[in-house]
Amino acid sequence: MSLIVQKFGGSSVADAESIKRIASRIVETRAAGHEVVVVVSAMGDMTDELLDLAEQVVPSVPSGRELDMLLTAGERISMALLALAIKNLGVEARSYTGSQAGMMTDAQHGSARIVDVTPGRVREALDIGAVAIVAGFQGFNRLTGDITTLGRGGSDTTAVALAAALDAEVCEIYTDVDGVFTADPRVVPKARKIDRITSEEMLELAAAGAKVLYIRAVEYARRHGVTLHVRSSFNHNEGTLVVNPKEGEIVEEPIITGVAADLSEDKITVVGVPDVPGKAAQIFTIVAQTNANIDMIVQNVSTTLNGLADISFTLPKSDAPGALAALNSQKEAIGFESLQHDDKIGKLAVVGAGMRTNAGVSARLFTALYEAGINIEMISTSEIRISVVTRAETINEALRVVHTAFGLDADTDAVVHGGTGR
Amino acid sequence: MSLIVQKFGGSSVADAESIKRIASRIVETRAAGHEVVVVVSAMGDMTDELLDLAEQVVPSVPSGRELDMLLTAGERISMALLALAIKNLGVEARSYTGSQAGMMTDAQHGSARIVDVTPGRVREALDIGAVAIVAGFQGFNRLTGDITTLGRGGSDTTAVALAAALDAEVCEIYTDVDGVFTADPRVVPKARKIDRITSEEMLELAAAGAKVLYIRAVEYARRHGVTLHVRSSFNHNEGTLVVNPKEGEIVEEPIITGVAADLSEDKITVVGVPDVPGKAAQIFTIVAQTNANIDMIVQNVSTTLNGLADISFTLPKSDAPGALAALNSQKEAIGFESLQHDDKIGKLAVVGAGMRTNAGVSARLFTALYEAGINIEMISTSEIRISVVTRAETINEALRVVHTAFGLDADTDAVVHGGTGR
Repeated sequence: MSLIVQKFGGSSVADAESIKRIASRIVETRAAGHEVVVVVSAMGDMTDELLDLAEQVVPSVPSGRELDMLLTAGERISMALLALAIKNLGVEARSYTGSQAGMMTDAQHGSARIVDVTPGRVREALDIGAVAIVAGFQGFNRLTGDITTLGRGGSDTTAVALAAALDAEVCEIYTDVDGVFTADPRVVPKARKIDRITSEEMLELAAAGAKVLYIRAVEYARRHGVTLHVRSSFNHNEGTLVVNPKEGEIVEEPIITGVAADLSEDKITVVGVPDVPGKAAQIFTIVAQTNANIDMIVQNVSTTLNGLADISFTLPKSDAPGALAALNSQKEAIGFESLQHDDKIGKLAVVGAGMRTNAGVSARLFTALYEAGINIEMISTSEIRISVVTRAETINEALRVVHTAFGLDADTDAVVHGGTGR
Repeated sequence: MSLIVQKFGGSSVADAESIKRIASRIVETRAAGHEVVVVVSAMGDMTDELLDLAEQVVPSVPSGRELDMLLTAGERISMALLALAIKNLGVEARSYTGSQAGMMTDAQHGSARIVDVTPGRVREALDIGAVAIVAGFQGFNRLTGDITTLGRGGSDTTAVALAAALDAEVCEIYTDVDGVFTADPRVVPKARKIDRITSEEMLELAAAGAKVLYIRAVEYARRHGVTLHVRSSFNHNEGTLVVNPKEGEIVEEPIITGVAADLSEDKITVVGVPDVPGKAAQIFTIVAQTNANIDMIVQNVSTTLNGLADISFTLPKSDAPGALAALNSQKEAIGFESLQHDDKIGKLAVVGAGMRTNAGVSARLFTALYEAGINIEMISTSEIRISVVTRAETINEALRVVHTAFGLDADTDAVVHGGTGR
């Protein structure tokens, strides 16, 4: 008898009908002879509604133990309803809060990290033949005795952490798409579902803007050797397996596994920086103090005789105002001429583990973009990824031509479901 | 520095504005130099909405650990919002679930009884100067590790139990009326607010249909010597003190403290019961097996020569069908002739500790009803209460004439607020 962890997001438990539908699905898995642990998010927009309520009481409500106490009510509702629905189908079910399920975290309210998982009560429920349902997104700090939340993507992380602690065969992440695609099917109609991807590639895709899985959950799965299966809750098709090949294991690695686009970043260029040692360090120390999350960095060689260089970097849109203010306040100390703020950039990334052993990937990428008349503004690479920055308005076209150039196009268009894409 | 427990019901935390209003009130109490423990119910109709949701998933959802898990989400939301509102006013506040506050109960989901209260974390919060907010209505069973709920009036009971465990000076029950009245002001406009009432009298009034306090909470207060203060959350008037006079303490006891009416019961008459020993026992054993909550019982003397008697009893409307079915199924064994089911009765009770030492109370009651042309169908008495059953349609008139007859009328009409009356 193998143990399967199944995670259902908010859209899968949005209303009574959805809850009954996934209850049937869970009971099917149980009837097939598996032990089943289910992780659920809050219903539909519940978390946003609770946040709205908090904002009505206290404008710009700070994170902290009280906000976490509030938000964790959401999963409590969905998990109890799901347990009732499963019991109504004749299968015993028990729901557990994060604290009851042993999700121990640090005390960082709003973005707590899991420090230990002690799912004794979940194991007991399985031992009596029950389906165990665990609230996603939430944990418990043993020192303070307080309830915590894990932040964005927290329910995925809960599922992966439980799968690791219970040595599950697989952690199934249910969503409203059929799996991980070679590109976003809403932009690239000929995108193909990926049958199998390494967690390393999945990490790069997620970091590059693929929304189907959260980076933290993939990291956790990679570190603990958990196999993920991203699949649709609307059909029984096989989805995408996210695997962790063992050291030395030979896996067939396509050169390019997928492409992803990201419109969530801005570009800041520090113009006319004296081209002397230490200036870049000075600039990024100042920016780091604003807690900005810097992504790509390019320093232009000083091409003029005045000994000045330009330094450009990208960062999340929400971090840009703080970084600009900090740099401006130190303008004289750094000695730059001006700042440029570009909020119309798009980032495209091609990811593939086979890139390691295949030359010519960047050449093929740059050629495809050139032939489509798309200008490249910045380039950054890792061992298994190449990212380029282009104009935001050309990003969808870029995604399509690159997808075609690397032979990823399917014969037919992908079926795109409605929904939020998570 | 004295400790005050303040309990706010669902209508006091119905929306963001109400929550901010009571937050100010709590902060005032804190600023006056008191330690403050607050007990809150779920917001407005939240509990009913959660029940509706459960019914959509599972028709006629049974009580149990999952339903309790669901319902306890309600207080979690209100208490966290209230804590945020108080902190926003510059006063430290911490919210605690029933389990965090040490409300230990038995395992009877849906109507758990408190077995122990260990409010160590509440005490710690007070010691650092914070307002402690505790979720009403909920507890925790230590043996099963499961969350429980206390049933109707549970938040009042939570407040009283915390007041007892923390040795509070007073337990303030906030409501949308000014206190306990000599009769329901919506029916008897000249009803007066009672300044002071013994818990014994309050118990009788609550049992007789006064809705302002729940019987279990008053019982708990009486047993543990907790003083209650029932008052309005809409003004700062003194409300009604519910006190526990010490043995031998001389208190001025009015003959009649208040009158109450109750339309929630039906009457069942077992007609033509053989007038032999053991028949009443047989009948009430059968009824008790349906878990019906029998209130008044009257056995008519057999006035005919056939040796048959009639036995009438009252019980909650919802218990009547089960009791009738059970009796009918044993018709031959008991040997009665027929059953009469009367769902149009009203019960009126006059309550007063001074009754013990004053003759003539029943005479004055019966005379008042007679003069108003109201027929009495059943009578039952305790040491400090007389109850009569009349036709349901005469009950309001009965309440007014009795209120007047015992000199309870105020000079002016009471101000009746809107709201549900709790």
